[in-house]
Amino acid sequence: MTSEIICVGTELLTGDTVNTNASYVSKRLMELGAGPVWQSVVGDNRERLTEAVGTALRRSDVIILTGGLGPTEDDLTKETAASLLRLPLYEDKASMDAIASFFAATGREMPEINRKQALIPLGAVVLENDIGTAPGVLFDFPLLRDQGRFYSRYRAVYMALLPGPPREMARMLDEKLMPYLRERVKGTALVSHYLTVFGTGESRAASLVGELQEGANPTVSPYVKNGSVRFRVTASAATEKAAEALTAPVLEEMKKRLGDSVVGVDIVSIADVAVNLLKKYNATVALAESCTGGLIAKKITDISGASDVFHMGAVTYVNEIKEMLLSVSHETLEAHGAVSKETAAEMARGAALKADADYALSVTGLAGPSGGTEETPVGTVFIGVHSKKSGTAVLKKRFGHGKADEREFIRELAAETALFELVKLIRKENNV
Amino acid sequence: MTSEIICVGTELLTGDTVNTNASYVSKRLMELGAGPVWQSVVGDNRERLTEAVGTALRRSDVIILTGGLGPTEDDLTKETAASLLRLPLYEDKASMDAIASFFAATGREMPEINRKQALIPLGAVVLENDIGTAPGVLFDFPLLRDQGRFYSRYRAVYMALLPGPPREMARMLDEKLMPYLRERVKGTALVSHYLTVFGTGESRAASLVGELQEGANPTVSPYVKNGSVRFRVTASAATEKAAEALTAPVLEEMKKRLGDSVVGVDIVSIADVAVNLLKKYNATVALAESCTGGLIAKKITDISGASDVFHMGAVTYVNEIKEMLLSVSHETLEAHGAVSKETAAEMARGAALKADADYALSVTGLAGPSGGTEETPVGTVFIGVHSKKSGTAVLKKRFGHGKADEREFIRELAAETALFELVKLIRKENNV
Repeated sequence: MTSEIICVGTELLTGDTVNTNASYVSKRLMELGAGPVWQSVVGDNRERLTEAVGTALRRSDVIILTGGLGPTEDDLTKETAASLLRLPLYEDKASMDAIASFFAATGREMPEINRKQALIPLGAVVLENDIGTAPGVLFDFPLLRDQGRFYSRYRAVYMALLPGPPREMARMLDEKLMPYLRERVKGTALVSHYLTVFGTGESRAASLVGELQEGANPTVSPYVKNGSVRFRVTASAATEKAAEALTAPVLEEMKKRLGDSVVGVDIVSIADVAVNLLKKYNATVALAESCTGGLIAKKITDISGASDVFHMGAVTYVNEIKEMLLSVSHETLEAHGAVSKETAAEMARGAALKADADYALSVTGLAGPSGGTEETPVGTVFIGVHSKKSGTAVLKKRFGHGKADEREFIRELAAETALFELVKLIRKENNV
Repeated sequence: MTSEIICVGTELLTGDTVNTNASYVSKRLMELGAGPVWQSVVGDNRERLTEAVGTALRRSDVIILTGGLGPTEDDLTKETAASLLRLPLYEDKASMDAIASFFAATGREMPEINRKQALIPLGAVVLENDIGTAPGVLFDFPLLRDQGRFYSRYRAVYMALLPGPPREMARMLDEKLMPYLRERVKGTALVSHYLTVFGTGESRAASLVGELQEGANPTVSPYVKNGSVRFRVTASAATEKAAEALTAPVLEEMKKRLGDSVVGVDIVSIADVAVNLLKKYNATVALAESCTGGLIAKKITDISGASDVFHMGAVTYVNEIKEMLLSVSHETLEAHGAVSKETAAEMARGAALKADADYALSVTGLAGPSGGTEETPVGTVFIGVHSKKSGTAVLKKRFGHGKADEREFIRELAAETALFELVKLIRKENNV
């Protein structure tokens, strides 16, 4: 079975609202084994909505619409669908009562325009809205045909109209629509895993994975983001267990080919992998950040329970503070400058000593756009990695392409690289 | 003129990636005066891509596609469009050279598969990619007709193929495509300004703005995000200047009504406003962060040139480090705990002294999900604001609603609140 998502609302078209409903609905449809092959956005416009719904009815099995169920004149989804399917609207008593009590509960009088929300196409299934006024509507076409209400030759089997506000939509989808569909749509179990590699370009990673990307089941597709390449490995089978069994050997082979650039499978973030490794080995890390300016600390403390492994971060944005907080020597700063191998090494060592930490990361570099020189262009970053066991190492990197708007990108890559260096070091020291 | 956006990529359909490209492109098309009336997502599938592009060519004037320009077999956008338009592909020498130097610059050898990215449909305009390997493609249909290359009766006037990675897409759109289209597409001038208020709920802010939201030109619409309410004020007129003249008095009146909860008009971020105020008054700020864990430092150092006003940030995640780096007294921590008014005050004072800064912000609180007590529930945050001139004040806040998944939300609100307190204090001290 194939599915299609149509999100209705002019605010989505104009870009004022990022469409989060589409990806939420997508994931549920994937779980159902009826992955979406079309997704579109239509404004509050009867003609275009009619075209979009008509096209969907002809080409998709399961159709989910979100938005356009509100009380105003602009809200057209239900009216347009009913008119296209030639089903009359009636005022549904249960829905009317639910709307009235929704207003009663908040002590407000129901505005007359909200009556419109209780209109339901004849023969459609009502999806109750537990946290808003707009009921949803499900057209169960086999059921409609059994009732003698519907004779078209559309391909569609189910079409649901859900409200636009994300919370109301998600709740109705999860609690009302999905249970209904799960009983009736017998899809194939789909299982996806994500293998993340870092520090290897997409082309190189893809060429290492090679012919595995040409398989039909599981399929293997790369996605690139900020220096990471994430491979999605998706298998379909009659049962979840059988689908898992198809992905496992492919993931193993990929790990073998990609070697130590593999961050992990189904990871949340590199910081999360680092924090979990530190927890596992009962170790702590201290941070000394210059150009990343707190970004690594932020990434680590994004994780609940980070305080077990992270006690101190120093953001040292000028030389005096590097000397004061991290005991970087005045001579080193004078002789080599703040953006240097030597300073990075002393920052990492200093942070580890100060916090009595097992590991420390330091970053000093030029995130730009200003401050670059011929010798040290914008994007030059020194990353220090210190461990009680292995001492201090410094990595010199050049991020970005010397363009003016790469500050965020350079900082992000520097932070992710530093965290992944920590991951690799802990793994190496513990032979995992 | 109407426009249409087609985002290509299976990862968008499956919900693995939230589609941010669509809203970015939308905003630019709105500015052009050719607002999108259709937006859709298609997977990496030749047949469905052909259908989507064919439909768009028949119904829209300006069409923007994103994604599917990569080097792999899955990347089909250019091939599909060329085949639909019956334009042969040729290897464009300039594009080939650009791709080769992209790899050369990073010291890697160009994989053979990347050759495919230099293929350009005959007669199409090449949009250079300054930060990636995939050139974009623009079909200027009037130009193609002039060249005798194209005779169809499609409605489309322009169709552009942009890369999928958001950074590459945004840069190519802004620097290559928009200048080209701006010269040729003569729409109505649309001007938008954004007024941001912080710390006032949407309902209250909306009721203060009152009837201004009912105007037709300019229109005024509120959007809510992480404690901020952003009002978009959009006017249309024959010229940009005339549109500007329509927005100005409305913005003034809104500022008057919203008072000191106004952060500013067309601001980048609260941190940006804070950094600019510090620069203006030649002052510095130091940071002492516990539960925000570097987030405020990150927000400040997101801004280029932050080093003029920010020298030191301390992320102190345990008591010992608060004592060591910020000279918080052992007695205070013992008597009142780390999450207390007293500790917040000493953290701010300590940071200011240590860095010899004019201002300091401190944050200590419980971001959760664990660690809450009846007395100090998760979401409790103390924010210290210190200034040489005004001394130290501490604000107690309770963020979130006691739910388990609010860690990020609480940290974000705490950081934004602290930064806005700094903004308000600097404004108050300088009567602006």
